[in-house]
Amino acid sequence: MRYFEDFAAGQTFEAGSVTVGEDEIIAFARQYDPQAFHVDPNAARASVYGGLIASGWHTTTLSMRLLVDHIFGETANMGSPGVDEIRWPRPVRPGDTLSVRLTILEARGSESKPDRGIIRFRVEAQNQAAETVLDMTGAGFIARRP
Amino acid sequence: MRYFEDFAAGQTFEAGSVTVGEDEIIAFARQYDPQAFHVDPNAARASVYGGLIASGWHTTTLSMRLLVDHIFGETANMGSPGVDEIRWPRPVRPGDTLSVRLTILEARGSESKPDRGIIRFRVEAQNQAAETVLDMTGAGFIARRP
Repeated sequence: MRYFEDFAAGQTFEAGSVTVGEDEIIAFARQYDPQAFHVDPNAARASVYGGLIASGWHTTTLSMRLLVDHIFGETANMGSPGVDEIRWPRPVRPGDTLSVRLTILEARGSESKPDRGIIRFRVEAQNQAAETVLDMTGAGFIARRP
Repeated sequence: MRYFEDFAAGQTFEAGSVTVGEDEIIAFARQYDPQAFHVDPNAARASVYGGLIASGWHTTTLSMRLLVDHIFGETANMGSPGVDEIRWPRPVRPGDTLSVRLTILEARGSESKPDRGIIRFRVEAQNQAAETVLDMTGAGFIARRP
């Protein structure tokens, strides 16, 4: 198990990769973001994107899953106050493979709660062409080692 | 259909409400954010949250669905460059009902692309006790009226 004391600014962690198919893109979007260019291949072809693209929220949650599987699942995570910035510089298309990296920007003890610290981090997801499809800055509360 | 010209700073739109159950919280988290306090009611009771809470990403995507159903589905939306800030000030728990409101902060024409404008907006979700559970600032590209 990883505790607050195990994090320091400058660390990077590779969080693996995932390939996303057309059916999965459509299924996610039908439930959470049913805009035409996410759920309807024909409408998407006629759109500015020229074809079906994943919801940015799908790109984000797929990346979150990789972060939990590879890093946060083995971390004494106490939740998150939020996210400071999300950018989706390029769309994700059916068949794309996303690789996710976590970089620790800052690790500081909580002033009000002595049992935990706060990490600020950057999450980057790249496709198989090494193009960035997600660039996010977030924060998390991590328990100190007992 | 709503176009860029139909948006102006200061407008507010009600985006309806949704009630979220324990099974749905667990199913979402198993797929996208399988941390113990999102997927395991017993572990969640022993956590700082004292019980199961929804992933912040679930709160966000449920709110997005309401925005599409009530506003963006009838808007000439051309996608989003990203989100500037997400805060989850309080957790969402099984049985909570979330009500979502959209406020337009800014609407300006694109300098590089004459066919569209950019809106900046705030999304707030409140639970049945009128406590804010999501406070997000984002942006979207909207086509001009043909």
